[in-house]
Amino acid sequence: MTTAHQTLRPTSAQLDAADPLAAQRAAFYTPDDGQLTAYLDGNSLGRPLDITVASLQSFVQDAWGSRLIRGWDEQWMDEPTRVGDRIGEVTLGAAAGQVTVGDSTSVMLYKLIRAAVDSQPGRDEIIIDRDNFPTDRFIIEGIAKERGASIRWIAANPAAGVRPHDLDGLLGERTAVVVLSHVAYRSGFLADVKAITAKVHDAGALMLWDLCHSVGSVPMELDAWNVDLAVGCTYKYLNGGPGSPAFAYVNSACQDILQQPIWGWMGAADPFGMTDAYQPAQGIRRFITGTPPVLAMQPLKDMVELIASVGMDAVREKSTKLTEHAMNLADEMLVPLGVAIASPRDPAERGSHVTVDHPLFADVTAKLWERGVIPDFRPPHGLRIGLSPLSTSYAEVELGITAIRDVLLELQ
Amino acid sequence: MTTAHQTLRPTSAQLDAADPLAAQRAAFYTPDDGQLTAYLDGNSLGRPLDITVASLQSFVQDAWGSRLIRGWDEQWMDEPTRVGDRIGEVTLGAAAGQVTVGDSTSVMLYKLIRAAVDSQPGRDEIIIDRDNFPTDRFIIEGIAKERGASIRWIAANPAAGVRPHDLDGLLGERTAVVVLSHVAYRSGFLADVKAITAKVHDAGALMLWDLCHSVGSVPMELDAWNVDLAVGCTYKYLNGGPGSPAFAYVNSACQDILQQPIWGWMGAADPFGMTDAYQPAQGIRRFITGTPPVLAMQPLKDMVELIASVGMDAVREKSTKLTEHAMNLADEMLVPLGVAIASPRDPAERGSHVTVDHPLFADVTAKLWERGVIPDFRPPHGLRIGLSPLSTSYAEVELGITAIRDVLLELQ
Repeated sequence: MTTAHQTLRPTSAQLDAADPLAAQRAAFYTPDDGQLTAYLDGNSLGRPLDITVASLQSFVQDAWGSRLIRGWDEQWMDEPTRVGDRIGEVTLGAAAGQVTVGDSTSVMLYKLIRAAVDSQPGRDEIIIDRDNFPTDRFIIEGIAKERGASIRWIAANPAAGVRPHDLDGLLGERTAVVVLSHVAYRSGFLADVKAITAKVHDAGALMLWDLCHSVGSVPMELDAWNVDLAVGCTYKYLNGGPGSPAFAYVNSACQDILQQPIWGWMGAADPFGMTDAYQPAQGIRRFITGTPPVLAMQPLKDMVELIASVGMDAVREKSTKLTEHAMNLADEMLVPLGVAIASPRDPAERGSHVTVDHPLFADVTAKLWERGVIPDFRPPHGLRIGLSPLSTSYAEVELGITAIRDVLLELQ
Repeated sequence: MTTAHQTLRPTSAQLDAADPLAAQRAAFYTPDDGQLTAYLDGNSLGRPLDITVASLQSFVQDAWGSRLIRGWDEQWMDEPTRVGDRIGEVTLGAAAGQVTVGDSTSVMLYKLIRAAVDSQPGRDEIIIDRDNFPTDRFIIEGIAKERGASIRWIAANPAAGVRPHDLDGLLGERTAVVVLSHVAYRSGFLADVKAITAKVHDAGALMLWDLCHSVGSVPMELDAWNVDLAVGCTYKYLNGGPGSPAFAYVNSACQDILQQPIWGWMGAADPFGMTDAYQPAQGIRRFITGTPPVLAMQPLKDMVELIASVGMDAVREKSTKLTEHAMNLADEMLVPLGVAIASPRDPAERGSHVTVDHPLFADVTAKLWERGVIPDFRPPHGLRIGLSPLSTSYAEVELGITAIRDVLLELQ
């Protein structure tokens, strides 16, 4: 770090000292074995909050253990939509009554994409990009096969991500639904939700956004952007724990014209009526299927409240600075070693992770994990540096990138 | 309790004193507010074990908080089948490699019933009984509609449950799959799995058992009984907490000829290969869809180990004695007030709950809940007395039935 250009930049210590969110880091559980030095994978699995231990204890003893089955009447029947509403308010820009929590992301994608395809006879094409997350592509592959629909693939530049013009020539009167990621899981590219959604609507089709890699790190205005459908996960930037439930957003304008295919009792109009035939509930509840995963949705509530206490704009501001810091450090330390930066340089087009590519990164990642520096690896040779804004310091980023450089030098 | 017949029976206190499983009750969390007097709904939501608080704390801090994303490689990728194998060994009579944990019961039913229907072209009928649990009926109603299949309804006597001869005239070369409950959710009737499965196989069809109301209270030999498919929940007698994940059993003979319709990344042959097209995993893993609910499957592990420590035969023996005790007390205290016993008298045909019917039972249940006596109510007028063998005492049963009598007398 010796050039004139570099010395003008603040150091990691200066950035941490000036960070208005620095105090939030103390809210996260830190193992006392001293073996974790830099966690750069909050985009894959967020760290637990300290308070989550107490929240779970209280849930087990007070809610489950004391109220027992009465908890369903008193609290839990509405838990999927109460927690969903709060996620919507704090992170999605969604008015109440449009978000529910449950299932896995993959199952939620299946339910909503099936609903979108089934509700539009004559529209038998699904549009998705080849660089979308595998589960999105696999789910659509299965749906296309079973419903006799066709997949139209967007051939976007993987490094750049999907832009509105990439849909030209694909959208049309046969398009049922377009499925894209808000933030691309590899490159971190941040899509223009408003412009793409408008374009899809011009073709009379429905738009579904996968929010897995953006929710809790990028502010959204789903209602204002006129989004139809969205699905997201809660174990990344919402810190819900491994395998915590997904959420679904269904714009109120779409709810009564869509019917999802998995007709479980908790999505019925009268779950405890033990009726003869299935009658879907009105509103967002019809997108529920089975008994909601109430225990599993407790930890994420703690994180949603922490985000609410600082606001999504502050989260985004720190996220942008963290990714910029990571890119600057990568330019200095990694690019000279043959590493390519695979994420957008423009912060307005970038989510909260930075991907760097090098043929040795599978091996590098394994060695980093052994020393408590934890990014993740995505084939063919991407090392992802995930920067969860509330739990990551600037010094941690520098420590991590320094370690990447050191291991790469050892292996080269 | 004054007749000669009654005095020959042991008292609740004598039964508790002679109960070889009495000591296990101390393992369950008991609220210290003194407001819970009789919990008779372990068939709907099992009580938490004391140890579950510590298990969750350890999971949050040691597994999630310390190993972080490394936990997937080290432990969690196999958690659905490792926990599934243990459920299979301890409670199902299932060899390893045939059980996986995840999704809700309803979603699992959808996946397996779709797989059964889709894999047998030309067989377009699904057989189910009208008294099966609503979600089973609703899921099948949805599948029949989307696949153009027909539902053949078994018109069994609800009080008696489904017997092999009830399938006469329904089974045939068009039957794809028969879906029945091992223990009926209302009457508690215990079906003859072996005989019914054999009869279904004679017709060349597949058999799926819903084990929700039996697993953990009735011993099973799914392998020996040659069962094809089964689904069960873990929040009743496996005490996994509200909305804990379901499990699926798929006989190894069926695994490679069945393909479930929800093609998520975790059911793919190479989840982290980020491959272009979906290729299902071999074996039981192909029935997984999304990211497994790892945190949510921790509490049930504690209960499976408690059951393992005493054995399912001992659990069943106590279960039978508890239900017999409940029926004897109901005969004495409730039948004279116009209550009808809606569960089988023969213990060999009875699961671990007893249902009693009376037109006032909706109101009675509400009043009982206020005083900490907690059965549940199922329309039209069934009060269910659920007797979770490891957490329920004979005295608790008597206290509960005495309270039912008292409230009924107040309301009559």
